[in-house]
Amino acid sequence: MLAVLEVLGVLAFAASGIIEAARKRLDVFGLVLIAIITAFGGGTVRDLMLGNKQFFWMTHQELVLAIIVIGVVTPFFFRARHIEITQRAIEWPDAIGLGLFAATGAQLALDNGQSPLIAAMMAVVTCVFGGIIRDVLVNEIPRAVNDHQPYALFAFGGSFLLWGLEVLNMDKSVAVIITTAVIIAARFLAITFKWRLPSWRL
Amino acid sequence: MLAVLEVLGVLAFAASGIIEAARKRLDVFGLVLIAIITAFGGGTVRDLMLGNKQFFWMTHQELVLAIIVIGVVTPFFFRARHIEITQRAIEWPDAIGLGLFAATGAQLALDNGQSPLIAAMMAVVTCVFGGIIRDVLVNEIPRAVNDHQPYALFAFGGSFLLWGLEVLNMDKSVAVIITTAVIIAARFLAITFKWRLPSWRL
Amino acid sequence: MLAVLEVLGVLAFAASGIIEAARKRLDVFGLVLIAIITAFGGGTVRDLMLGNKQFFWMTHQELVLAIIVIGVVTPFFFRARHIEITQRAIEWPDAIGLGLFAATGAQLALDNGQSPLIAAMMAVVTCVFGGIIRDVLVNEIPRAVNDHQPYALFAFGGSFLLWGLEVLNMDKSVAVIITTAVIIAARFLAITFKWRLPSWRL
Repeated sequence: MLAVLEVLGVLAFAASGIIEAARKRLDVFGLVLIAIITAFGGGTVRDLMLGNKQFFWMTHQELVLAIIVIGVVTPFFFRARHIEITQRAIEWPDAIGLGLFAATGAQLALDNGQSPLIAAMMAVVTCVFGGIIRDVLVNEIPRAVNDHQPYALFAFGGSFLLWGLEVLNMDKSVAVIITTAVIIAARFLAITFKWRLPSWRL
Repeated sequence: MLAVLEVLGVLAFAASGIIEAARKRLDVFGLVLIAIITAFGGGTVRDLMLGNKQFFWMTHQELVLAIIVIGVVTPFFFRARHIEITQRAIEWPDAIGLGLFAATGAQLALDNGQSPLIAAMMAVVTCVFGGIIRDVLVNEIPRAVNDHQPYALFAFGGSFLLWGLEVLNMDKSVAVIITTAVIIAARFLAITFKWRLPSWRL
Repeated sequence: MLAVLEVLGVLAFAASGIIEAARKRLDVFGLVLIAIITAFGGGTVRDLMLGNKQFFWMTHQELVLAIIVIGVVTPFFFRARHIEITQRAIEWPDAIGLGLFAATGAQLALDNGQSPLIAAMMAVVTCVFGGIIRDVLVNEIPRAVNDHQPYALFAFGGSFLLWGLEVLNMDKSVAVIITTAVIIAARFLAITFKWRLPSWRL
């Protein structure tokens, strides 16, 4: 079950990497590389920290192949149809990936015997680090730290929701799905209503 | 003893992260994230390389909470008092963190059975990588490579001082404290008297 | 045999790091740091992912010392002779490092029992990540994703060549040398004849 959700999250983040790389006119190899790093980067850093030896891209190599094919083919399709992709187009797959990766990342850490706080940090790492590396590679301040909208904050808060549901003896699969849905819904609301985080000016 | 010094180093680097993030007007979540990454990043990369499974932030979760609270509250305080923070304000906590992290990082590597050279490299990793990630995230060339003042060089040199003192049978705790003090003093002198490293122009 | 080739690759990448850092007028410590990170970064990330505990710079500490000495001394030499180093000068050592690291990285992964696809990804990681970190540190979009010329693509393709040769029962050492030569030759051709990869514009 976790694996199915993580596959969806991987595809959502890969899409955001492809869009960003195409907007920056990177070459096709760079586009595929950034799609793969965006999709698997956060989970890989989390697994390195938790001491997991088998990364998701090692056990799901068909996903790597799928991203390579999608990365090479999709831009052709968009060019042929003259579909314009705005900067905001990246926000929707990103929001879906956020919810999926946060819930699965937190669950993995809890299964690993970590505390709720560490699980929340791992949720943030899983859903933020891929995007951070994506933005650093195209030489921009990462959206995750400069968005001024709540983003990874939902991943952080959602992890405690997940932990709370399981403390209340809810079935794990149900708790993960509820947490995922709540995070995605919260992010959609934040985008739609332009919720803002305060920024400090010293 | 190492743990107490590392706590002080963590707080010093967290302060430098908060100052940098506030100057760049990042949102409050980005500010806390950068404070945590600056504080724990160098030690985490070192521990990954040395094969240590327990990271400092896993065994000292109260520190993570403290940084979150400090990151949310401190900027309020400064804004209320109209205290202006100049770019140079970051240099003093940074110098203290430098000495603390260099000495503890080198000691950890020596305890791990590494050579003096590897210990010196681990000292540099511990005290430089957090700051490097901080500067990369706010899209600047890291101070650590572009400062034109001796900085991590003191960490590198200080590690050999630490090793030498222990070869001479000095008590480890005393050697770590002396090394920390020497590195901080050297960095303070370098800042005060504007010591310069040569830069190459090909 | 793998070790000899990896030594040559390390020196080639260190040279590219020195050239880039000198062009950006970094201070001498930053120059040495970037040379070391460029030279060992890719292999270190690969070894972290494959679970190898002994990094190349731990078992070949004399190489670290050599890079420090070269980094401090070389720029003197160039300045004394008024030799101008153009941006293109970095491309030749980079191409040699590319071939050496790709073949040794892929071989290490195959020895580790990984599939050809994972071996090809490890080849790309080995030869690309050092250069990516180098470019990120000097605040540029990494050449590896933005070069518009085939670069790591040759590492990716070359890995399958290596795997194919070994499936055909060719001696491993010979297969590694052939693969290295083919990748270097392909990159030289790509530079000379300005082969271009397509870039997508959404």
